[in-house]
This record gives sequence, structure tokens and C-alpha cells, in this order.
Amino acid sequence: MRVAVLGLGLVGGSVAQGLAAPHTVTGYDADDATADAARRSGLEVATSPQQAVQGADLVVLAAPVTANDALLGRLAPGTLVTDVGSTKAPLVQAWRASGAGPRLVPGHPMAGAESAGWGAARPDLFRGTRWVLCPGLTAPQDFAAVCRVVLALGAHVVPADAEEHDRAVARISHAPNLLAAVLAEAALHGDADTLAGSLAAGSFRDLTRVAASPPERTAEFCLANGAGTADVLAEVARQIASLAQALRAGDRAAVLAALAAGHRSRLAYEGRGDGTAYEVVVEGERWWEPLLALGRSGGVITDVEQEGGALRVTARGGTA
Amino acid sequence: MRVAVLGLGLVGGSVAQGLAAPHTVTGYDADDATADAARRSGLEVATSPQQAVQGADLVVLAAPVTANDALLGRLAPGTLVTDVGSTKAPLVQAWRASGAGPRLVPGHPMAGAESAGWGAARPDLFRGTRWVLCPGLTAPQDFAAVCRVVLALGAHVVPADAEEHDRAVARISHAPNLLAAVLAEAALHGDADTLAGSLAAGSFRDLTRVAASPPERTAEFCLANGAGTADVLAEVARQIASLAQALRAGDRAAVLAALAAGHRSRLAYEGRGDGTAYEVVVEGERWWEPLLALGRSGGVITDVEQEGGALRVTARGGTA
Repeated sequence: MRVAVLGLGLVGGSVAQGLAAPHTVTGYDADDATADAARRSGLEVATSPQQAVQGADLVVLAAPVTANDALLGRLAPGTLVTDVGSTKAPLVQAWRASGAGPRLVPGHPMAGAESAGWGAARPDLFRGTRWVLCPGLTAPQDFAAVCRVVLALGAHVVPADAEEHDRAVARISHAPNLLAAVLAEAALHGDADTLAGSLAAGSFRDLTRVAASPPERTAEFCLANGAGTADVLAEVARQIASLAQALRAGDRAAVLAALAAGHRSRLAYEGRGDGTAYEVVVEGERWWEPLLALGRSGGVITDVEQEGGALRVTARGGTA
Repeated sequence: MRVAVLGLGLVGGSVAQGLAAPHTVTGYDADDATADAARRSGLEVATSPQQAVQGADLVVLAAPVTANDALLGRLAPGTLVTDVGSTKAPLVQAWRASGAGPRLVPGHPMAGAESAGWGAARPDLFRGTRWVLCPGLTAPQDFAAVCRVVLALGAHVVPADAEEHDRAVARISHAPNLLAAVLAEAALHGDADTLAGSLAAGSFRDLTRVAASPPERTAEFCLANGAGTADVLAEVARQIASLAQALRAGDRAAVLAALAAGHRSRLAYEGRGDGTAYEVVVEGERWWEPLLALGRSGGVITDVEQEGGALRVTARGGTA
């Protein structure tokens, strides 16, 4: 496929670097220094989004979320397009509002780094990771085409509904990013040349790692998923305040219950397995529903082939 | 030195494994299976605490905190003793209440793992880490002797007052451990075979790592430092609740301010350096005060020698 990648930061840059033959890539970035750096690395870089998407089989929107909404609105009807934003429902709403012209398969790679920019991008960023794609807005062959590009980057595909995705990432990514920042500040108040700063070890190091990320980038994705993230934060705040009371009261049972619940959840996460591979054929008017069931139950897509109007999907884990 | 290590779990076991000639180690553990495992590894293991401490130059209390208090009360007056508990003020209080018989230099290695027991212990657990010792309860030569054992394990020594230590570790260790548990449970509710469980990636992985620790161990050290840990949790709960409101209101400035503060604190932590080495001679009635100032300003002790009643300390970072 000819793939146009609009936005050459950490994620877009890694997509551009990771796609090998038979795929070809044309990039674009609004920042001249980024565009130059990508060009010097050997990437074909266009001088405008219009030039980049010319003749592309797939457009990947990898600019900041608000810029993606604008770029999406300017694509020609019928253009196959995906994105890498960490919130999906607002993009789908914008797409519907603007007449649903492009063939949209919303996406979200569950990979990243606290660093940013083309310089931080690497071709293997997605290898062994999971990548959400939202099926059902367009034809099954569009979903299959975007799947194949994602699979070529070494990721497994998690099919998900846009709103369910947003609620899930609020829990496991957006709220945690804010918690890391709050904890880092509560622990050090900006100064590490102190006893607390000196003693900060493994638990502080890991719990605050993502606070090293650019604050603007984190603010943008948390605000884009504001209501869902706020729900999780409010729940966490209640639990923490209640734990503070239990500690003051010396209520060992309450403290232990909270720790045991967290321990059980962590072990459940560590016990995730990909399971054995099996095949599912999806077809018909609501062909995407078994795929959503697959994603909801923890399954991933590891291969997909078209068979007429149907898709033959190889899956691991979950239940389609 | 002849060192008796009472308690052969992760930390005590690593002390016993890490001390090489000229030090010799006798271990003890109340759990027969642990004692047998240590014996099979070649450690000399006594059959009672009394037997283990017989003729020892230094006793290391490495049992659970409550057991340490009892062991401390049974040591002969004049015995040089340190401990590895993560809260220091209660131990000092217990020592004073029982007549301050043993020569106590309270300690706390800032190293650990989410695993536990003799099987998880390793001789290099402390290499490159920091280890708090509280000077001033006994003579300078006692502090120097315990320092040298800690330095022999590859750690640098952070001198600290017991109560200041407890407030610092509440911020950078005890509260973070509870936050990790609360977040893991709020994110997954015990089930990882879900969309959220499937999408959990780097931020969830690192923020909840310590929730894999044994809940009983974490409960014990958080309860031992209950008031200080509760203060930090209450502060974090207020900040998080306020962030939830900011997200609902779409208040970008407030969200960005919280993220920027956390970012600044994380970068301050990442920018910690050991600094260049310098020497300090401490002596006189309040010989420990320059050492506490050193620890408060982020400095560490990398070597110590006795010169009559004075200590010649090699330090890095901070200001003595």
C-alpha cells in the first residue's frame, strides 16, 4: 500500500519508520525541523498534507488530536483513513458531523514513551504491543486493510467500540498519567535535593515514570477524554481518602483489603496470556459484532484475510 | 565483623548473601523452611536467636517489624544492633522505653522487590542503592561500624533523623505503594480478561508494579508509618479530586498546571547526581548534626574512618 503519514512525532514517525516493502510511505509534518529531520533520515516527506495524501491508499492521521480533526475534515470523500489518537469517540463524532466522507477506521496503538518527536521514533515501537481498531463505520475490507498495516508493524489488533475504548483507556492510561504527576509533585514539591528526593527508589521511580512525558501532550489526551478520566480519578480519590482514614484509625483489615484487591488485579494483569490461535469468519450486516465481543473479552486479531464480503480472522484469547 | 542476621527474607537474606570476608554471618529465621533453604545454600544458620547473636559484633534485625521490636527487647545491654525496617521512629521509641540497653543504629535500605523470601534474596540487591542510618543514639564508632557493613554491601549511606526519615518515606514509598494498589483495582476490578485489561500497557504496568508485592508486608509498613502516610494520601486525594473537577470543566490551564508540576518534580528526581567527593570530619558532643544536614540536602556517605573520637567521612552531594 501507499501510506501517507500526517504527523511525524513519536507515533507517526515510528509508523513511517516501521513500514517496510511492499508498503511505501510519504510523510508530512507541519513543523519544518521535524520534516527536515525525517527527510535526512531518508523518508519521502511532502511539503503539504494535500501533496502527501495524493494517490495514497491509506492516510494515517498522527498529528495532535485537534489537528487530526481538521485534517480529517479536508480529506476527499472515499479516502481510507485511520488515526493514532488516544481518544476515539470525539473523532467519530467529528467524522459523522462532517458528512462521513472518508472511509474511517479509527485506531489507537497502545505503545508510547515518555520521550517525544521524530528523534524518539523507532521502527520497532509497536512490536509485541496491542493496537485498537474500531470496526463497523465502513466496509469489512477497509478494516482488513488497516489491520494488515498494523500487523505489519508487529502489533496485534484489538477490535473495540469507540466509546468502550475511551472508558477503558481512561482507566489504564489517562487517569494513571495524571496520578503519576500528582504523586511526583506531592512527594518532591519540585525539589529532589532533599531527604525525600535522596531516598526515592524503585516504587517512586516506576510510579512517576510517565510524569516525564511532555505535559502538553498528556493534557491534550486527558482533556479529550475528560469525563471518563474524571470518573476514574473521582473513584480513586474516594478510595485514597478512605485509606487515609483507615491508616489513621489503625484499621489493619481495611488497609489489607485494599492492598489485597490491588494485588489480585495486578496478578490478573500479569497472568494475561495470548491463548491459542483460532479462526473466526465474520460476515453479514453486523459483521463487526463478533469482533467487538472478541476485544471485550481480551482477545486479539493476529491475522486477517478477505473471502468475498467476509473476513477470515485469526484470533488469540477472548471469545468472538 | 561477626554479623548475626535475624530474619532471612528478601532483605535479611540479601544482607547475609552479600557480606563477604572479612565479615562472617550467622543467620536465623523463625520459619523452618526458610532456615533450611538458607542452610542448604551454605549459610551458617542458628536454631534460635540467642544462639545466632552469641559472640556477634553486630546484630541485624531483619524480621517483620513487630518481631524486630520483640527481638530488640531481648538483646543483652551493649549489643551493637541495626535493623532494616522501613519505619524508624517506633523502633527508637521501643528502644528508649525498654531502657536503651543495646547500642542501636537504626537502618533502612532503600532497595527491595515485589517478590519476597530467601528465594528472592540476592547478594547484589543493595549495590548502587541508598541505605538510611540514623546516627546519634550511640557513639560515633558504632555508627561507623554499621556504615562499613552497609558500604561493604555496595550501598551508599544516607544519614537521617528517625522522624524525618519516616515522613520522607511516607512520600516516596509508603503512599506510592498504596496508590499502586488502589489504581490497579480501580482499573481492572480484579479481571484482566476485559477490554481494559487487554489495553493495559506501559503506564499501567509501571504504576502498578509494586501492587504485586505481598499485601501483608505492605500493610505492615504502611500501618507502622500510618499518620505520615495518611497525610500524604490525603494530600494526593485532594489533588486528584480537584483534577477530576478540572477535567469535567474542561479547565485546560488547571490540568496543565498539575501536569507541569509533576513533570518538574520528576525531572528534578532524574537530575539527581552523586556530585563530586569531599571529606568532612565530624566530632564533639553533637557530632551527628552535620551528618543529618548532609542527608537532608541529598548527600550520601561513601566512606568513613575513625580518628580517635572523630569520624572522617567521605561524602558526595548535599552539604554537611
